[in-house]
Amino acid sequence: MLNPKTFKTMITSPTLLVDEHKCRANIRRIVRKAEKHHFEFRPHFKTHQSVDIGSWFKDEGVSGITVSSVKMALYFARNGWKDITIAFPVNIREMEAINKLSEEISVTILISDPDIIGKLADKAEFAMGVMIEIDTGSNRTGLAVSQNEEIQKLIAGLSDFKNLEFKGFYSHPGHSYAARSAEEINEVHKNVLSRISDLVSGLSLDRKEYSICIGDTPCSSVSTNFEGIDQLSPGNLVFYDLMQVQIGSCSINEIAVALACPVVAKYPSRNEIVVHGGAVHLSKEAMEENGTKHFGFPAHLNEDGWQVSDENGYVISLSQEHGIIKCSSAFMKTVSPGDLIAILPVHSCLCADLMGGYQSLGGKTLNHLRTAGL
Amino acid sequence: MLNPKTFKTMITSPTLLVDEHKCRANIRRIVRKAEKHHFEFRPHFKTHQSVDIGSWFKDEGVSGITVSSVKMALYFARNGWKDITIAFPVNIREMEAINKLSEEISVTILISDPDIIGKLADKAEFAMGVMIEIDTGSNRTGLAVSQNEEIQKLIAGLSDFKNLEFKGFYSHPGHSYAARSAEEINEVHKNVLSRISDLVSGLSLDRKEYSICIGDTPCSSVSTNFEGIDQLSPGNLVFYDLMQVQIGSCSINEIAVALACPVVAKYPSRNEIVVHGGAVHLSKEAMEENGTKHFGFPAHLNEDGWQVSDENGYVISLSQEHGIIKCSSAFMKTVSPGDLIAILPVHSCLCADLMGGYQSLGGKTLNHLRTAGL
Repeated sequence: MLNPKTFKTMITSPTLLVDEHKCRANIRRIVRKAEKHHFEFRPHFKTHQSVDIGSWFKDEGVSGITVSSVKMALYFARNGWKDITIAFPVNIREMEAINKLSEEISVTILISDPDIIGKLADKAEFAMGVMIEIDTGSNRTGLAVSQNEEIQKLIAGLSDFKNLEFKGFYSHPGHSYAARSAEEINEVHKNVLSRISDLVSGLSLDRKEYSICIGDTPCSSVSTNFEGIDQLSPGNLVFYDLMQVQIGSCSINEIAVALACPVVAKYPSRNEIVVHGGAVHLSKEAMEENGTKHFGFPAHLNEDGWQVSDENGYVISLSQEHGIIKCSSAFMKTVSPGDLIAILPVHSCLCADLMGGYQSLGGKTLNHLRTAGL
Repeated sequence: MLNPKTFKTMITSPTLLVDEHKCRANIRRIVRKAEKHHFEFRPHFKTHQSVDIGSWFKDEGVSGITVSSVKMALYFARNGWKDITIAFPVNIREMEAINKLSEEISVTILISDPDIIGKLADKAEFAMGVMIEIDTGSNRTGLAVSQNEEIQKLIAGLSDFKNLEFKGFYSHPGHSYAARSAEEINEVHKNVLSRISDLVSGLSLDRKEYSICIGDTPCSSVSTNFEGIDQLSPGNLVFYDLMQVQIGSCSINEIAVALACPVVAKYPSRNEIVVHGGAVHLSKEAMEENGTKHFGFPAHLNEDGWQVSDENGYVISLSQEHGIIKCSSAFMKTVSPGDLIAILPVHSCLCADLMGGYQSLGGKTLNHLRTAGL
């Protein structure tokens, strides 16, 4: 419950509100799924980047996590997390930090380009796990499933180095973001599973000896078949956002963060209001809806948090600090300069990264890597 | 000069390099223009948000500055700046901080919506300047030049409140960003000057009693007629960026910042390299060039900083931490995982805000509001 004082007087500048209840429900849903389908839920913490929010996962029994940078790994390691996959192509310039980490906790790194192995092997001073990144269709990073021979060679090569232990395969099926319905998400997922199955059957390896981890929010949220998958590492689903609603991963009611923004000007002649809440708060991530490119939905704040609706209007443009909202006459009538409204973000990961912290509906400040002084 | 050690071994993760020489040249160019055309250069510090870089302006005799948030004003005020315009529609929720600031230094706030005056007046506890924001064509914020009567009424209303001193008019001609040549920039500028002239001639006020401040980087950089303008407050021109090159504000050689990024993977079959340098470093600000939407140009680093070229390729997509570069075969041949390359940003203000700090080519760390612990 949002203390009325919070939005009436206490919030003076853009503030990222997090609805703990919705967040925990989002976490619990996937934890139940993991139990049912016998995979390890190994959440990607790049979305929230917060030790406080991380503890909500711990409460559900999560112990292994995924991050997208060495810095993030350091932050969570310092705060008690002992089993971390750094799901980003290993950057050999950071081997000093990776070594330090590997000395203290269980670290798994990613090899996404076979050429790195020569440079990596003599720099790994402590035992670390290695996953080979596989491209299951997103065309971003990783070896193609068809590069069977190269993959097999790479695994054989790894065994020459005592500190590099082959753990399995990692893939981020980011192409699921192009889906626009549960059916389309399931289609992507089916294809990913089939590629993974091709990979597995083409390798002369004991399937029990290695893990397969995939993790995108759309497939993790919607799909119900996880055959052949050992670990799932979605990130965004802790918060969700408008992009995920459009993809079909969640409902608008499941979005667990909203940016509280002071209204600073009103231009009724063009149905626009201006808020403090710009590109340095929401990010320039945009999406299109009914032919309109936008950066978020405005919403009213109330005792329950924010009142969800897609009929209030759109954030149609962002400057560094300004957000310009084209809104319905009904919404326009209810707000004045000095009021606080909420904006549901297009991309919660980037918004959270920019905000560098959260406020719970109860008024508690929640930490974030950005403000941890690392 | 960039110490070869810096880019060969010392930079391990994305780092925003600033070329002090280029920066100072950019500052000096506009300072000379101000001297020649008799206006006050009142730079917008939202771009660099750095006390260290601010000192380069001080070296050129700058004393009054412009910022885009109260927090930014606090930061610069604490670091010796005593005359600050907060060029953002006044947010009455922040009056406590604005009052504190006004007690200590000379603060000018912006009124962009006449309705705010009633709520503002009884909250202003110390003397502060007030500028009325005028919309000269960007349709973002401010009163229309044609709202003559309302403007006159607003000014008359201000005189009722002892702590609010009418200082003049502020306008950000942001529509100059749609220009694509010096001619088009000049066309916008001419139109802005003519609107301002209409405003002035429609008011029954002594022109000597108030100032007119405008400030967009394209017009400030290109135009040579500043008749009727007392203050110029461009921000971006300290760094420039690829967007400004496209607009016609500057040459690519004048861009004074570049993001140093470790190369982490290479995919020759699709002419792509992957760097650590994503949406949380460059921002999702995109531009189009020859039909390609992109997020920056890759460049080589050398002893002089970065080697400028628009023939290396483009950053074609960004994830949170990944940058995917579609590059020329020539560029592809020269880089390997473990190398460091530079990316010229599309929008330097947002990139600097995300990076929260700089490294000079000589290896010195330069501060930024984000890491000032405010």
